[in-house]
Amino acid sequence: MTPPSRLHIGAAYYPEHWPEERWPEDIRLMKAAGLTVVRMAEFAWSTMEPSEGQYNFDWLERAIARLAENDILTVLGTPTAAPPAWLVTQYPATLAVDETGRRVQFGNRCHACVNSPEFHAAVERFVTAMAKRFGPNPHVIGWQIDNEYNRVCYCDTCRLEFQQFLRRKYGSLENLNARWTTAYWSQTYSAWEQIPLPIGPHNPGLMLEFRRFVGASYRRFQKRQLDALRPHLKPSDRVTHNFMGWFGGFDHYELTADLDLAAWDWYIGSGHNDPLAQGVIHDLTRGFKRKNFWLMETQPGNVNWAGVNNSLYMGEAHAMAWQAVAHGAEAVLYWQWRSALGGQEQYHGTLVDPSGQPRPFYQEAQWLAREFAAVSDLLSGSEVRAQVAMLHDYDSRWSIEGQRHHRDFDYVEHFTHYYRPLAARNVNVDVLHADQPLDGYRLVIAPALIILNETRVRHLKAFVENGGHLVLTLRTGVKDEYNALLPSRPPGPLAELAGVEVEEYYALEMPVPVQGEWLTGSSLLWAERLQVLRPDCKVVARYQRANGWLDHQPAITETTGGTGRVWYVGVNLDTAAQTKLITRILNTAGIPQIESPPGVEIRTRRRPDGEEIYIVINHNRSGTRVRLPWNGYEHIGKRPVQGTFELPAYSTAVLTRK
Amino acid sequence: MTPPSRLHIGAAYYPEHWPEERWPEDIRLMKAAGLTVVRMAEFAWSTMEPSEGQYNFDWLERAIARLAENDILTVLGTPTAAPPAWLVTQYPATLAVDETGRRVQFGNRCHACVNSPEFHAAVERFVTAMAKRFGPNPHVIGWQIDNEYNRVCYCDTCRLEFQQFLRRKYGSLENLNARWTTAYWSQTYSAWEQIPLPIGPHNPGLMLEFRRFVGASYRRFQKRQLDALRPHLKPSDRVTHNFMGWFGGFDHYELTADLDLAAWDWYIGSGHNDPLAQGVIHDLTRGFKRKNFWLMETQPGNVNWAGVNNSLYMGEAHAMAWQAVAHGAEAVLYWQWRSALGGQEQYHGTLVDPSGQPRPFYQEAQWLAREFAAVSDLLSGSEVRAQVAMLHDYDSRWSIEGQRHHRDFDYVEHFTHYYRPLAARNVNVDVLHADQPLDGYRLVIAPALIILNETRVRHLKAFVENGGHLVLTLRTGVKDEYNALLPSRPPGPLAELAGVEVEEYYALEMPVPVQGEWLTGSSLLWAERLQVLRPDCKVVARYQRANGWLDHQPAITETTGGTGRVWYVGVNLDTAAQTKLITRILNTAGIPQIESPPGVEIRTRRRPDGEEIYIVINHNRSGTRVRLPWNGYEHIGKRPVQGTFELPAYSTAVLTRK
Amino acid sequence: MTPPSRLHIGAAYYPEHWPEERWPEDIRLMKAAGLTVVRMAEFAWSTMEPSEGQYNFDWLERAIARLAENDILTVLGTPTAAPPAWLVTQYPATLAVDETGRRVQFGNRCHACVNSPEFHAAVERFVTAMAKRFGPNPHVIGWQIDNEYNRVCYCDTCRLEFQQFLRRKYGSLENLNARWTTAYWSQTYSAWEQIPLPIGPHNPGLMLEFRRFVGASYRRFQKRQLDALRPHLKPSDRVTHNFMGWFGGFDHYELTADLDLAAWDWYIGSGHNDPLAQGVIHDLTRGFKRKNFWLMETQPGNVNWAGVNNSLYMGEAHAMAWQAVAHGAEAVLYWQWRSALGGQEQYHGTLVDPSGQPRPFYQEAQWLAREFAAVSDLLSGSEVRAQVAMLHDYDSRWSIEGQRHHRDFDYVEHFTHYYRPLAARNVNVDVLHADQPLDGYRLVIAPALIILNETRVRHLKAFVENGGHLVLTLRTGVKDEYNALLPSRPPGPLAELAGVEVEEYYALEMPVPVQGEWLTGSSLLWAERLQVLRPDCKVVARYQRANGWLDHQPAITETTGGTGRVWYVGVNLDTAAQTKLITRILNTAGIPQIESPPGVEIRTRRRPDGEEIYIVINHNRSGTRVRLPWNGYEHIGKRPVQGTFELPAYSTAVLTRK
Repeated sequence: MTPPSRLHIGAAYYPEHWPEERWPEDIRLMKAAGLTVVRMAEFAWSTMEPSEGQYNFDWLERAIARLAENDILTVLGTPTAAPPAWLVTQYPATLAVDETGRRVQFGNRCHACVNSPEFHAAVERFVTAMAKRFGPNPHVIGWQIDNEYNRVCYCDTCRLEFQQFLRRKYGSLENLNARWTTAYWSQTYSAWEQIPLPIGPHNPGLMLEFRRFVGASYRRFQKRQLDALRPHLKPSDRVTHNFMGWFGGFDHYELTADLDLAAWDWYIGSGHNDPLAQGVIHDLTRGFKRKNFWLMETQPGNVNWAGVNNSLYMGEAHAMAWQAVAHGAEAVLYWQWRSALGGQEQYHGTLVDPSGQPRPFYQEAQWLAREFAAVSDLLSGSEVRAQVAMLHDYDSRWSIEGQRHHRDFDYVEHFTHYYRPLAARNVNVDVLHADQPLDGYRLVIAPALIILNETRVRHLKAFVENGGHLVLTLRTGVKDEYNALLPSRPPGPLAELAGVEVEEYYALEMPVPVQGEWLTGSSLLWAERLQVLRPDCKVVARYQRANGWLDHQPAITETTGGTGRVWYVGVNLDTAAQTKLITRILNTAGIPQIESPPGVEIRTRRRPDGEEIYIVINHNRSGTRVRLPWNGYEHIGKRPVQGTFELPAYSTAVLTRK
Repeated sequence: MTPPSRLHIGAAYYPEHWPEERWPEDIRLMKAAGLTVVRMAEFAWSTMEPSEGQYNFDWLERAIARLAENDILTVLGTPTAAPPAWLVTQYPATLAVDETGRRVQFGNRCHACVNSPEFHAAVERFVTAMAKRFGPNPHVIGWQIDNEYNRVCYCDTCRLEFQQFLRRKYGSLENLNARWTTAYWSQTYSAWEQIPLPIGPHNPGLMLEFRRFVGASYRRFQKRQLDALRPHLKPSDRVTHNFMGWFGGFDHYELTADLDLAAWDWYIGSGHNDPLAQGVIHDLTRGFKRKNFWLMETQPGNVNWAGVNNSLYMGEAHAMAWQAVAHGAEAVLYWQWRSALGGQEQYHGTLVDPSGQPRPFYQEAQWLAREFAAVSDLLSGSEVRAQVAMLHDYDSRWSIEGQRHHRDFDYVEHFTHYYRPLAARNVNVDVLHADQPLDGYRLVIAPALIILNETRVRHLKAFVENGGHLVLTLRTGVKDEYNALLPSRPPGPLAELAGVEVEEYYALEMPVPVQGEWLTGSSLLWAERLQVLRPDCKVVARYQRANGWLDHQPAITETTGGTGRVWYVGVNLDTAAQTKLITRILNTAGIPQIESPPGVEIRTRRRPDGEEIYIVINHNRSGTRVRLPWNGYEHIGKRPVQGTFELPAYSTAVLTRK
Repeated sequence: MTPPSRLHIGAAYYPEHWPEERWPEDIRLMKAAGLTVVRMAEFAWSTMEPSEGQYNFDWLERAIARLAENDILTVLGTPTAAPPAWLVTQYPATLAVDETGRRVQFGNRCHACVNSPEFHAAVERFVTAMAKRFGPNPHVIGWQIDNEYNRVCYCDTCRLEFQQFLRRKYGSLENLNARWTTAYWSQTYSAWEQIPLPIGPHNPGLMLEFRRFVGASYRRFQKRQLDALRPHLKPSDRVTHNFMGWFGGFDHYELTADLDLAAWDWYIGSGHNDPLAQGVIHDLTRGFKRKNFWLMETQPGNVNWAGVNNSLYMGEAHAMAWQAVAHGAEAVLYWQWRSALGGQEQYHGTLVDPSGQPRPFYQEAQWLAREFAAVSDLLSGSEVRAQVAMLHDYDSRWSIEGQRHHRDFDYVEHFTHYYRPLAARNVNVDVLHADQPLDGYRLVIAPALIILNETRVRHLKAFVENGGHLVLTLRTGVKDEYNALLPSRPPGPLAELAGVEVEEYYALEMPVPVQGEWLTGSSLLWAERLQVLRPDCKVVARYQRANGWLDHQPAITETTGGTGRVWYVGVNLDTAAQTKLITRILNTAGIPQIESPPGVEIRTRRRPDGEEIYIVINHNRSGTRVRLPWNGYEHIGKRPVQGTFELPAYSTAVLTRK
């Protein structure tokens, strides 16, 4: 994780599962595959500390050294997602408690309570020892803290911590009772100790704060590890965590704030890559720190935890790796190198099989490694630049997930519904936290931004005042930061800006027809009855005959008066109409688009010198022809390209203009 | 709840959620809508008693007064469905225990154990204080005890109470063991303390008694509140509880026995009103006390707790309110007036939105209020009169629900299956407890009356001997009051009366064809092989080729000998055949019917002076023409009507004959 | 259960449910039906021991005597599946603990922990008393221990026992940690006390051992009862347990090792008999002891515990009884004689209804009894002989069930998929434990034998070396006895024998086409990419275009070099292709087959004198004509048969050659 002098390809490697005699053969095969980095040790606590205070790091040092001799660098993980049996036996309160009130069993992973003082002590002691030993190691280029945070604990310690968290935030119970409207159902709290950890449906204010508390707990836990690590690291070392894409257990912006680098683990599970929908997760992850990121794990063919653990098509993982790079990845690591003979993940895909021989997939990784090597210098330092931003907000997501109102209304799907037409037009998109300033963008889309605060309202107003184009969608501006309804019609403080307010919203049991001058379609799941507030707000489309309440009422509006524009989209359009709407908005906002055949993705990364690199990926199972509007040079095949060129199934071209 | 001098329209109102400055505007809007009553305080315990013994009733008194100044009367609820945090913290044993053995969390409602002595003490103290303060208030016309009873508790107190309940009922373990056949699976009890609260499937005798025990617990709990209330009430005050229609957690006849008035909360949830099926719930509720009832809550457009919280069509709620009145309602209250800014029900329909402005639905309520005002005097004192009774029995329902034998055989659906053709012919129906005397009816239908006792057998025999027409259906007369099989072929003690017995019953995996002289159809889910016992019992229809056992055997019979008649229907007919059968029976029994276009309901209420009021409701989304066989006067529009007249979508006419 | 001098028909009978005055009538009806045996007392503990040490056996002795007077023999059950209330109240630790950590409630059955020392003591005491009283009784011909073992307990006693079980097996934690690869996820155990009882997914080694431990616990529990019983039994008495067919809670070979006789309870539940699939369960049960077995319970029409408790067609149970006999049953007992008036199974099928009169089904039992009587002597001592063996292995099943990899891949279905075409060709099959020697068979099929050990590898090699024909299927030879992956490509130690290895396996999200010289079809759920290792291994079929990895790779192979042959089937073929493949293999192996019309089953049992008895069963709802290639004698109708003869719906012919 030195600065991106190099585009890395690697794998998770667990030398502790194998006799040391086997290591040379594995490393030979890694080198032959072209791997440049491995991640190690993130589950090896019981090997590194077989009993309290007895450290056993030599084997790991030998592994790092032998890999380095073969030009393979190391990222180390702190193994805190897998506290050993001796630890949880000696300190039973380190075990998390689940929703049913029982201590989690030992025998899987993520069984610890991240608020447990005993666990904190053990983690600090161990991570300090590990950092002292490996921090200075020149072959270790970075660290991963823990692994895929996800456990939520309901123990008494957590309950106390939650109450203290609330006390710090609200100051007084009077304030909390007011913010949460606890007069409702006699929920009034007269002592902090009365407040429960919410299991199942609860007061929306309580539920939202609990999600924030989970994030704050992880952040504090992570900070302890960072504080233990950093004094011993080299200046170039970067520290990260491998997040899980759209996983919604906590606010990832909070968690990445203290890290140097964002990273995520990309698994398809059952089925296949849907590039128009998956691309947004890369952009989401890139947006955590607004920098390039790592793909810390991805599936070599198949996983073992889905209902149907089918394999990706031959070549598909190759295209996926390039998609990650096209969206800002600096490294792609497969999980894992070789199947452990025992343990829960015996059937997960790997590069090398239990017999120690390469699997068929090995060759696909080799292919990718050759290509990465060919363009590593070209891509070094390049970044994705976008004129379109989509605003993302965990609070809004949680607010909606806690009260969907329509069981099929999903924040992530709604977000993706707006992303997909942009992706189809090969438009670079930054996914930003909703509180970010918006200078420099031409178009901002804020899907279902149900929770508003002063910061985001101020930024959005400034953006439009400065000539920006803004798309607001249904469910926007309904609530405040405490998950309470705003005492105004939606979109509340944005109504004036949008020139429109929502008289009523409707969860739909069947689609409702929508018709405008240039738009015909229907709204699914949701429809809002709009009332125009300003003369410069034009009705783009109206409902046709529906449930009576909606008939002939405005469904989509557009302000046309100022330099900037605001669309309010009170409907959830079918795919065809959505594409039409978004394309129209892109054109109005003057956003450049790139035509490409179906299934072919064309993305750009900009070099520090300003040169654009075009990454052209064929996500199809068959070859296709791509037409270039300019003469270029293809850097993998090292050949000039002009007019049309052939792109075989799942393959990639990396081009610059001549 | 003074005697029905007036047809009320109202809403649930929670002034405690709002600053007092807002009240005048809300009350102004209520008055403008035409509301005549509000229900208040049923969840306001923590506001009325912020800590033990510290009462805070002034605000409520001010609210009652201000409403009264605007001609809006008040019903008060005792807030015992929402015990405050301080109470459950001080007395932890007041919290109910769920089926998994855990105390219910604070933070929702209905979290108390209704058998808890500490809870009893707190409730009595509080209700007494509330009754003293508001009982004499002239603007308070009635009281609601608690809210939608539903919690079942599995705590140790409940277990002890259940054992004592059994001891009182059975006297000796010997008797209990015999009634429950505990020799089976060695279930013999040698001490009362051995008897468990049943979780999951258990001995049918135990399961049935537990349901009865839950009802007895609620009745005792309710009685304590009544005893605390009544000494302080005015003579005209009526006390009620808002039941939940077909909710089957306890015997509603038991619970209403001590109340002055029955009431229920009508919610559609997802989808729309099915008038032919929903009408029976009004009749059920009317039957609890054989008097007019209140609709204490109903949905203003949409709810918030269903999978898809779609809105009713514009006008649909209006037709529903009239349907309630047509079936005997004296009042219709919407839940609720205005969305609380916080709390679990933020997205529930209301008349006024979070911004404090009327929602679109407000106008529909206004429309209804105008009409109620127009006919209030006319309807005053009028009641539904019926010549047809359907016998209803919680014991039979529970017996079947505990052992459906066919997973899709549902007591309520079966009951409704018999109700629907009656409703389509606009036949008034009384739904009676199965033990009621049957004098005065011409036709009695007893669907799936699986549990027989001496009372109901005696009444049914007397009814037929006196010339009554009786329909018995499948699963009748299989069990005794202890949920034990009767040592006889079904319908057991009614076999002689019916002239038929059931040789065998069959849960069906596919429909079985049924054929008679004037009936062709098929039986779904269930079929009984009948054996005719008497020469005057005629086979109405036989099975065709089926599973071998049923082939060509009798399926439906009719006794023809005496003055009265008995049909035994051993099949569960498809809709068309069911309609044919029931129409035939109506004609044979000489029950008057009223023709109406599809979706148009015509019901009668009889005034004390004997005059019939015809309430004609168009449940369709479009207007239709209705033909009158006589000249009439329409009291809403105040105009004479003759021949055919137009009834717009979802609108209602209230007619008398000229 | 004297040696099979007689083909028994009987029923479960519970005289303790009825007043003694009723017994004579029941016994009269039994005799009229032709019953020759009853099973009694297996749930009568509370009747036989109403309080600790107070025995009440007289009633049972009277019942046995009265039955015997009517030529009806008795099998007694030990009632340990139903410990009485007094017992579990006095010794609370006898109650099992479920997966959620709660003691099982009293009130159903199987509520005891089979490792509880208190329960052991109570059982030994009671069974000894029962054995002393009834062991010498001349009318008691056998004993059933307990009833349908199935409870799994998670109490602390069980946890300690499990840890001791592991300690005995593994000797050292070092060994256990190595076998289970506990370095993975830091699962390393440093004390036996750290090892949990697995709830939900866990380390595959741990999960497999827990299944074995459950079996070992039941075996020990059963052994205690056997030791208490046997000293008091007559030499001719046989002891059995009524297993539940494919129920997979423990290794049935382990459990039957100590018994004299295997028996099972055959229930269809919902739907109807699928004879080609159900036959294998008889063969499975026969294989437990490689001897004839009893059908201890079967359904007289319908059960009460399925979603839809439909009845079997008239005659269907008759054909099923004959199917059992054709596969080696010596007795068929219906459950139960008469419906108890109370208890959980009120609606289960019986021969006599609650009124005490025969149900329609009674006549079907009577028909069967007449036929059994007619051929009892003929069948006496006859046995099923097979040239085809299918290898069955609980370890392999559990290994796959714990990690299906494809949610629809089911060991039992896969096994049945190979059995079905054999059954359609009327080929007798022995289902053997996978570790049995294979001498004497011509064809062996080993479906999904994922776990290999030295014994089974040695037997398979010897079998092929001696000219045997062997079919290996997908997922074979992947793991060792510790559920760890073998460090080799599948089928591991059988690769050389098969001449092929598996380069990669694929769980399929859609079918993959497969094509060979004489085979066209597709593979569902699973496909393996094979690599041929030996020149005498011929590719029988290859994949067509699929996911890229599989395209044109070998799918099925056959070794052709030696005297024996090995097929490796890397696919899960559609039904038509599977039939084609298996028929081809049968022909290659020279296995005799019998043609029969669809739905007609023809099975043979061989008499001690070598004569073949042909049992011809029409499983169709209509009559059909069967053609005999030889002249025969039909023993039920007592008439010669030649050429074709008519077999009515669900009826049976028992033939020998003339």
